[in-house]
Amino acid sequence: MTTQPGQVVFTRGGLPESVHTVHVAVVNASGKVVAACGDAGLVTFPRSSSKPVQALPLALAAPELPGDELAVACASHAGTPEHLAVVARLLARSGSTVADLRCGTHPPFDPGAAADLIRQGEAPTPLHHNCSGKHAGMLLACVRHGWPREGYTEHGHPLQVRIRELHAELGGVGLEDVQAGTDGCSVPAFALPLHATARIFARLAAPQGELAPALERIFQAMTAHPFLIAGPGRLDTTLMPLVPGLAAKMGAEAFYGLALRQTPRGPLGVAFKIVDGGERARPHVALAVLEALGVPVTPELRALAPATLTNWAGREVGGVEAQVGLTWG
Amino acid sequence: MTTQPGQVVFTRGGLPESVHTVHVAVVNASGKVVAACGDAGLVTFPRSSSKPVQALPLALAAPELPGDELAVACASHAGTPEHLAVVARLLARSGSTVADLRCGTHPPFDPGAAADLIRQGEAPTPLHHNCSGKHAGMLLACVRHGWPREGYTEHGHPLQVRIRELHAELGGVGLEDVQAGTDGCSVPAFALPLHATARIFARLAAPQGELAPALERIFQAMTAHPFLIAGPGRLDTTLMPLVPGLAAKMGAEAFYGLALRQTPRGPLGVAFKIVDGGERARPHVALAVLEALGVPVTPELRALAPATLTNWAGREVGGVEAQVGLTWG
Repeated sequence: MTTQPGQVVFTRGGLPESVHTVHVAVVNASGKVVAACGDAGLVTFPRSSSKPVQALPLALAAPELPGDELAVACASHAGTPEHLAVVARLLARSGSTVADLRCGTHPPFDPGAAADLIRQGEAPTPLHHNCSGKHAGMLLACVRHGWPREGYTEHGHPLQVRIRELHAELGGVGLEDVQAGTDGCSVPAFALPLHATARIFARLAAPQGELAPALERIFQAMTAHPFLIAGPGRLDTTLMPLVPGLAAKMGAEAFYGLALRQTPRGPLGVAFKIVDGGERARPHVALAVLEALGVPVTPELRALAPATLTNWAGREVGGVEAQVGLTWG
Repeated sequence: MTTQPGQVVFTRGGLPESVHTVHVAVVNASGKVVAACGDAGLVTFPRSSSKPVQALPLALAAPELPGDELAVACASHAGTPEHLAVVARLLARSGSTVADLRCGTHPPFDPGAAADLIRQGEAPTPLHHNCSGKHAGMLLACVRHGWPREGYTEHGHPLQVRIRELHAELGGVGLEDVQAGTDGCSVPAFALPLHATARIFARLAAPQGELAPALERIFQAMTAHPFLIAGPGRLDTTLMPLVPGLAAKMGAEAFYGLALRQTPRGPLGVAFKIVDGGERARPHVALAVLEALGVPVTPELRALAPATLTNWAGREVGGVEAQVGLTWG
């Protein structure tokens, strides 16, 4: 079989079984689109890949914030006790409680943490929501900026208005190019061209201008605390320690943003979206992109995107082939 | 936004977020392809949608088998105690035990059953595997046909050779058109053109020839025991009782096979495959196909494929639009 550029093909017995399509944009430190696969102008939602931007008002207003708390404000965490402890500390910093969180509730992403709750006969709380750190950070940002905590998730709240502006500023697009929906945790989710999100991650890779100190602190917090950004076995957590100078943030529906400081072409920002939202294709695309950008792919890195599939009985039944075929501009 | 034929679009804030593509084939009682969307000749794996065919040697050799046991042999069950009781009964009928099952082990699909196991501090067994009924049925088929139970999952075993022949016979294609991989439960998974799988389901809808009595018993068993075929909240279980004369069987990677006895165009067989394996699109495609085939879509039926998406906080954040746009031949 022949896998086409921009495809991740899951095979069985050597035959294609399911196919994912991906769009990729790569932007350099000057903000220029230097490589792409598919449509770099695709307007789509970064979802949680927006979290470094959503944490910017916090980083700007709370320069003393410890790195672990800033990291968990950028996280889609797995709800382990270690995550919850840091979120609770961040939440207390603004005098807020769990009752102030507007993210909703879901069981911990981490299967072990979810099973522990069941064993203890306890129900999940908003603290377990993967976005609770972001919400705790938003509450502190409101307090520090003198904005009301009340209604902090609403589209018209000053915090959310500012976050939308930051998407446009850092993305190098007009405010009219940043459209809004509502995210799984009830804050605005912004939709913007793929190249604009790649540009945001290029800014994280090579901070410039008056936002540089805050962007630098976010980059350092993310890379210093990969466990807090996601959790056991999750891609951000496993990938960042293996690639020097990489900050990576997953978004729902198979979005990915990567800030790369050390590539043969200098600092780069990458954004990709798997069209169908198929999360399982993400590590395969990430590895193929890193390889195409000249990042040395070690065996440990390769192991994050296994090329063979095994079944419930441990038998090899198929494989995965990914082609990103970046076109350099 | 405009959804294209053959697409299921998940939207957020009125903007497309993720897109699934589908291929559909519809075959009548004469075996003719009467309608299609996309590529009716797509060679792909029906996976568990093959289970009615895999149960045929059992149905042929064990005419006295109670309907519930024949149903669970056709099932991808959710591992509730009710499922396990029927599987255990079927397994005992051939003098086999759990140790004879070669399906492997995974936690029950049903979240409640999985949580109960955790609470009881018990590990799942091969009985909990969604295919354990199929495997128990295969063991009984071997005993009745005088084939060894040993090696019943292997590609060269007489049972698996016969099942491959039955795919070709019922699918109206040559044996060379039925290719083989290995399934999640270690038995052969066959790949064949989409129209051939639709033809198999047309045969279930309108049994003919010497296999007719066995096909009729399988159809009756499936439709009489929709809970056993899948489980709480799962599509086969919820869909079959709402559409008179429908036997439906899901397959992994977002395959679906439907045998419809009562449509304005007479009995029809339908097979569809969502290209990326995105299971969440299946109810939306199923509903769109049923509507296109003239099946009355009641509010209860419509509720199986909600057009709106709500988030963890219960807030409406998006929608789902499905277009199959069948072309009638």
